[in-house]
Amino acid sequence: MEHLNEKTLKSEKLFSGRVINLYHEEVLLPNGKTSTREIVKHPGAVAIIALTEDYKILMVRQYRKAMERILVEIPAGKLEKGEKPEVTAKRELEEETGYTCSSLDHLISFYTSPGFADELVHLYVATGLEKMEVKAELDEDEFIDVLEVTLEEALAFIQDQQIYDAKTAYAVQYLQLKSAVGE
Amino acid sequence: MEHLNEKTLKSEKLFSGRVINLYHEEVLLPNGKTSTREIVKHPGAVAIIALTEDYKILMVRQYRKAMERILVEIPAGKLEKGEKPEVTAKRELEEETGYTCSSLDHLISFYTSPGFADELVHLYVATGLEKMEVKAELDEDEFIDVLEVTLEEALAFIQDQQIYDAKTAYAVQYLQLKSAVGE
Repeated sequence: MEHLNEKTLKSEKLFSGRVINLYHEEVLLPNGKTSTREIVKHPGAVAIIALTEDYKILMVRQYRKAMERILVEIPAGKLEKGEKPEVTAKRELEEETGYTCSSLDHLISFYTSPGFADELVHLYVATGLEKMEVKAELDEDEFIDVLEVTLEEALAFIQDQQIYDAKTAYAVQYLQLKSAVGE
Repeated sequence: MEHLNEKTLKSEKLFSGRVINLYHEEVLLPNGKTSTREIVKHPGAVAIIALTEDYKILMVRQYRKAMERILVEIPAGKLEKGEKPEVTAKRELEEETGYTCSSLDHLISFYTSPGFADELVHLYVATGLEKMEVKAELDEDEFIDVLEVTLEEALAFIQDQQIYDAKTAYAVQYLQLKSAVGE
């Protein structure tokens, strides 16, 4: 694929943060010209489609500073250094919802913003949910409400833009597909 | 939702780029404590599910510097300043694939990475495709291959991680759902 590849001529780290790092790069294009790329590096994340026995999906309502608004999303969280995604998924489910799961299956992984960031989200389906007697603790700077949402409610949340992010839209469509094929 | 909201105490612009801007913010949490947020501002983007008459979907293969690998994605592109998303969608479809469409319907919009970025992607379904006699020009630093992909091929591309991003995964699942409900 030599007719598509770009080569790094120069890479400069502009910012090193708690969550992301920012790089400015100069690249050699396939036609011999040069261009620049702005690259956000992210540790990766997990998200969990947690299904109750009566076919509701657990969601969390939280304030998102980047948009300056409250969103309803499926539970999710960043990978800690060296942590396996399925461990992060179990931990985040417990911390954010107060539920453990007996079954956790990988569904799909995807990059969220390939044009400028390397964030990879690993999406899991959790079933066999059981409410924990002692709720796990949230991060110090996390404040959330937990919701149990039916497919119909989720579709209404998409309509009125309370659900408004890619991983949660994917999760809702997944439920629609499961429902359509009669699973 | 006062128990969830964060207030901006300080916002500092750290980087102003061609595509993204980076801010570092200090916020007041609902419990009165403070924390920091790293925020990427993005102009927003469109993506197009372009369907041929024989039910193939147009995709583009391109190098993505953030991941340093080639991905297969549905056509997409950034909003120009002041440009309406449906205009961007029509333009990007023409530039990237060489097809015009007679019908363009908004399917859904979603934030791609609500944890650190405000990028909003508007997803459209394009039908009534017609090959242009004179292909529109790509951006100077864009190099792509155009593919016509069946649903089965798309599912195989997900398996071997050639398709590996959220908007394209959503598009493929949309086709599965359409197929399951017999549309």
